[in-house]
Amino acid sequence: MKLYDMRLAPNPRRVRIFLAEKGIEVPRVEVDIRAGENLQPDFLGVNPRGLLPTLQLDDGTVIDESTAICRYFEEMQPEPPMMGVTPVEKALVECWTRRMEFDAGLPLMDAFRNSYPAYAAERAVPGRTGLRAIPELAERGLSRLADFYPVIERRLGESDYVAGAHFSSADIALLCITDFARALKMPIPEDLEHFSRWHAAVSARPSASA
Amino acid sequence: MKLYDMRLAPNPRRVRIFLAEKGIEVPRVEVDIRAGENLQPDFLGVNPRGLLPTLQLDDGTVIDESTAICRYFEEMQPEPPMMGVTPVEKALVECWTRRMEFDAGLPLMDAFRNSYPAYAAERAVPGRTGLRAIPELAERGLSRLADFYPVIERRLGESDYVAGAHFSSADIALLCITDFARALKMPIPEDLEHFSRWHAAVSARPSASA
Repeated sequence: MKLYDMRLAPNPRRVRIFLAEKGIEVPRVEVDIRAGENLQPDFLGVNPRGLLPTLQLDDGTVIDESTAICRYFEEMQPEPPMMGVTPVEKALVECWTRRMEFDAGLPLMDAFRNSYPAYAAERAVPGRTGLRAIPELAERGLSRLADFYPVIERRLGESDYVAGAHFSSADIALLCITDFARALKMPIPEDLEHFSRWHAAVSARPSASA
Repeated sequence: MKLYDMRLAPNPRRVRIFLAEKGIEVPRVEVDIRAGENLQPDFLGVNPRGLLPTLQLDDGTVIDESTAICRYFEEMQPEPPMMGVTPVEKALVECWTRRMEFDAGLPLMDAFRNSYPAYAAERAVPGRTGLRAIPELAERGLSRLADFYPVIERRLGESDYVAGAHFSSADIALLCITDFARALKMPIPEDLEHFSRWHAAVSARPSASA
């Protein structure tokens, strides 16, 4: 088994934190997206979508998409549960995870990919070449991300963790998005106290450095 | 239990087909997105994201996102399985479903929301107001969708269904995207024989009319 990974990218980090919480070790292969290694024939031969993270099983089966890779390990080793236990919990972890992805992760990626100079000419969409940046989409992404922060502040005022009373893969998604946003100069506003309390708590878990 | 639904929208249709395959009936409440009913206080009181489909349980719990709603019913009633049985099958159904969503569904929604006249002024993002259309994003969406069709043609040349040998929620996602694209004058190119064979087969299932 091999996990194709990139140290600095937010989605691969989701899987690393998830595995650290489970105590599972998987051999990693570092692929440098900034240098375009994900778009070279070697990696496209493994995953034609050119996306990280990608898990390759020993029989050659390829699983990509962070949540699908996490699902595989959750099913193989249910303890400690990171994606809910009852049907309602499983559905709530999944819908909160997707809310983090669609309402924060995608706008952030729109902002980053459509403004970062090295990607402007033809790498505005992850895993692809030939698509140029749309500056107005970068602006829309930043505006949507700014609108998202107070929404999650309210949520974390009513619930210890994103999907309810327990730490879950929805928290991991939000942590990786938040820290990537901070690196892009979009930190959590300091006056959002619940969001800041949550960030300090999840960042203090040993898995956060994975 | 109530399912907030819209007859003509592709994501609500995914849940209706899924329920039909399972033989589960849920009372439906029709919400007219085109008329903006999803952005009115009544519906925002149920789901502040303003998105369909949305499931409300009898205790008031709200689950949105098509795959999360389907996950709830899959866990409550596993037969017939629509999201895989073994860990690898579950991961493959999830990653193929997301490939359909991210490589075809999102580009299609970008194309639609950023070109449809009624949404151009301030409804370019589902569930939101105040965000205007970006015409260049509509073009990018159409171009990405055109690139996706040969990819799925190759996949359906090696596999009866999207995620493998069995009909699954990944097929439902692709069917709903495909039929919505056809309504927007982006039909499956006729020379893609595997894709066309697949479309005829899944369209012939009784669930397709749900």
